[in-house]
Amino acid sequence: MYSPLSFPVRLQENTIYLLDETKLSFEETYIEVRNLKDALKALGQMKTRAFGQVLLFFYACVLCGDIDTVAEAFKKTRPTFDFFLLAEILKGAAQKTSTVNGAVEMIVEGFDEKRKGRAQRLAGVLPPTASILTICNISGELIYIYDALKEIGKRVTFFVSETRPYLQGTRLTLWELRQAGIPAQALCDNQAAIVMQKGLINCVITGSDRSTDRGDIINKIGTYALARLAHYFQIPLYVLTQFPRAIDIEEITIEERPPKEVFAWFDEKDPWPEAVYPSFDITPSEFVSGWIDISGKVRCA
Amino acid sequence: MYSPLSFPVRLQENTIYLLDETKLSFEETYIEVRNLKDALKALGQMKTRAFGQVLLFFYACVLCGDIDTVAEAFKKTRPTFDFFLLAEILKGAAQKTSTVNGAVEMIVEGFDEKRKGRAQRLAGVLPPTASILTICNISGELIYIYDALKEIGKRVTFFVSETRPYLQGTRLTLWELRQAGIPAQALCDNQAAIVMQKGLINCVITGSDRSTDRGDIINKIGTYALARLAHYFQIPLYVLTQFPRAIDIEEITIEERPPKEVFAWFDEKDPWPEAVYPSFDITPSEFVSGWIDISGKVRCA
Repeated sequence: MYSPLSFPVRLQENTIYLLDETKLSFEETYIEVRNLKDALKALGQMKTRAFGQVLLFFYACVLCGDIDTVAEAFKKTRPTFDFFLLAEILKGAAQKTSTVNGAVEMIVEGFDEKRKGRAQRLAGVLPPTASILTICNISGELIYIYDALKEIGKRVTFFVSETRPYLQGTRLTLWELRQAGIPAQALCDNQAAIVMQKGLINCVITGSDRSTDRGDIINKIGTYALARLAHYFQIPLYVLTQFPRAIDIEEITIEERPPKEVFAWFDEKDPWPEAVYPSFDITPSEFVSGWIDISGKVRCA
Repeated sequence: MYSPLSFPVRLQENTIYLLDETKLSFEETYIEVRNLKDALKALGQMKTRAFGQVLLFFYACVLCGDIDTVAEAFKKTRPTFDFFLLAEILKGAAQKTSTVNGAVEMIVEGFDEKRKGRAQRLAGVLPPTASILTICNISGELIYIYDALKEIGKRVTFFVSETRPYLQGTRLTLWELRQAGIPAQALCDNQAAIVMQKGLINCVITGSDRSTDRGDIINKIGTYALARLAHYFQIPLYVLTQFPRAIDIEEITIEERPPKEVFAWFDEKDPWPEAVYPSFDITPSEFVSGWIDISGKVRCA
């Protein structure tokens, strides 16, 4: 099964069509992106994220032609994500295909199969009756995990942490699971501890925006707290990683978003200025039980 | 200084005027409660809580006359809070005053001084420059703590965890501190870990709905996660307790609220039914550094 989030950004002729994730689950609308400026605006306003921002980067390179300019501008807009790595991958592919356009087509074509392969490998290590807690949104990949579990006769229930302030858990993950008819329950971020304590969860699955070869990850704010709790309750935490890098995770800039966003979806016409909003947190490798990278490789602690 | 939340419920002649905490911070309105049925409705809808529900209980006893009936009905409506203890206290006082009305007057009269005394004692053990993280709302008592700290020359900044799903942190605590001109910053519940990790917090202060003589507490959902994190980062956690009881905390019923409330303040016309919502969690005594009870007694771990 597919979610609109499985492939949230598409290029048709010279226009990028980008699923507006800030409007979900209320409406499914697409933004038209025609140049780098449009792309940066959509990125900065978090109209897309996760897999969507990877696609947006590649397609922006097609529109703009200059990979380094796009990488610099994207990095400045959302500093935590590794756009320089995407630039390297794209340049490597462009050497084979000779055009940026051809390189992007080649990379993007393979994504879906790789993501399905990753889901299948993760399904193999999950319990026969998996009760999965997740945070934020993994761009349709939970649905692939559901399909993969079903195929090998495993059962699954999802618990979705709402993921404040943007509520990507409720608005995106719970919504896409419901759309696909997959059983799922929402909970507030601060309810994870008691749900674990009650024995309702037997694994935690998250994506990751960054990861190191030592196994540390950076992911949506709240992941670290879940990881610590899971560790305490001896619940395994599996992370879907992109391309681990040999870097010191402490050196990665944690993006600080505008304070008023902390009041997002809180019906306050004129949000108060006093708030802190780090968007991501760091989970050291000791709290991770397994890493499944995009090539499908499973590494267990 | 005072907050409207310092004394959110008042009795005038035969009507209870109850500050509607679900309408804050958007409007400050009062609900009229004329009988037990009205009181139970307001209680069940969380129009008041914390200190407000203590006052509502006592005043409902004045209106109704029969303490046991009120205690049974209140307990059924919000099972976690110890209304039977309030009934015992009221019966004890009524033996001296001979009327329920007189007993309630006597008890309520002393509350404010006791709460201020508790704030002063807590201020004594806090750091010279206190950077306090709090959760939910302690009915104006943070303002007393602020005043007490100022009086002894200590400085303070407050960080307020928003406390989903009802946002009592943002709607009540941040609001009352702002009203009083006290510096405070909001954060989402899932941001506590990184804020602690960055060294921005040097103590955590919470109220408690229930506590045992062994030092375990029950408080608003999310407290336990904060306590675990604070413990890990060696940040002391101080709890304002009511009347500790010689009970096993595991035997206390944790109230499950309607799933749709998890979607509260999330602009969803027809909230989805799939959610879990335990309202409280249990924090074992090992995660608490100090208890300050209503008599002002400070006990440190």
